[in-house]
Amino acid sequence: MKLLEDRIRKDGVVKEGNVLKVDSFLNHQMDIELFNEFGKEFKRLFEGVEINKILTIEASGIGIAAIVAQYFKVPVVFAKKSQSINLDGSQYTSKIESFTHKRVYDVIVSKKYLSPDDKILVIDDFMANGCAAEGLINIIEESGATLQGVGIVIEKGFQDGGKRLRDRGIHVESLAIVDAMDASTGEITFREQ
Amino acid sequence: MKLLEDRIRKDGVVKEGNVLKVDSFLNHQMDIELFNEFGKEFKRLFEGVEINKILTIEASGIGIAAIVAQYFKVPVVFAKKSQSINLDGSQYTSKIESFTHKRVYDVIVSKKYLSPDDKILVIDDFMANGCAAEGLINIIEESGATLQGVGIVIEKGFQDGGKRLRDRGIHVESLAIVDAMDASTGEITFREQ
Repeated sequence: MKLLEDRIRKDGVVKEGNVLKVDSFLNHQMDIELFNEFGKEFKRLFEGVEINKILTIEASGIGIAAIVAQYFKVPVVFAKKSQSINLDGSQYTSKIESFTHKRVYDVIVSKKYLSPDDKILVIDDFMANGCAAEGLINIIEESGATLQGVGIVIEKGFQDGGKRLRDRGIHVESLAIVDAMDASTGEITFREQ
Repeated sequence: MKLLEDRIRKDGVVKEGNVLKVDSFLNHQMDIELFNEFGKEFKRLFEGVEINKILTIEASGIGIAAIVAQYFKVPVVFAKKSQSINLDGSQYTSKIESFTHKRVYDVIVSKKYLSPDDKILVIDDFMANGCAAEGLINIIEESGATLQGVGIVIEKGFQDGGKRLRDRGIHVESLAIVDAMDASTGEITFREQ
């Protein structure tokens, strides 16, 4: 998605340790007009795919998923990252490791909001090693719902999360795939799509 | 907002300890069509108020703020609840106490995304004792930005957060104010607005 690649080149900051900071428009400050363009593009990329619910994960997936959901006319469920007294005890859980936060945490979805009738599109802001997406996919499989696809805003193509999911036959669409980035020059190489 | 009160009566669950569970449509599963109605109503309630940015707090404020922002045509900044390596060290912070999670945590906003030119609308899903809103207001004041109003989806009117903010002259609008609720009968009494 050229609009997104241009925006990443303009406002993204490459940091040591393969960190791409896009918090000026994606995951701290959120450019809602841009998110609407993501919604149109995901709708086009998943055209004809039956989807009745979007699943994402707190926190930075939520805003994107909410806007994207408008184009699919479906509700969003967001997985929570830690136990909360507002959850019922009747939950699907999966352990995932965060690349950003360098720690393992539990991801939780109430059993009430995923059922075997659900056709799920997973939406998230980033995919690196794919652990967050895999955690959500584990939960979908446990619930008996059907995973219809995974939509990612920025995929780090030099890490193996996207490849692993595609090798399993999962329909993954990433709006921008970063194949290389250089913290010393700030240069970012996107995969041709 | 009658549509919201009806939905709370239909799908909300009153639990012991003054907990109102609305996770089927507000803060775990999100009814995006309903959120659009919130957006229209907040736009009406803050008509004529100059707003160039919405500030909310992760996680459950984000989806609401993203949808509401479409009606104001402004970006959203969400405050983060714990230190992240993706933040720069150049941050506004405030300590707040969560009613839901019974703990104190740091709320963080990067200094890059709040400036003295900003006219801020704070949006959140719930207000009980008002600590989350006050934490965000502290950050706004520290940044030199102007607080233009606070928009809350569900206010617990039997706790004093809303009153404290209104007594300070802050323009607070809550789409539904719960004045009483009874866990034994499930009955919910809304304030006439």
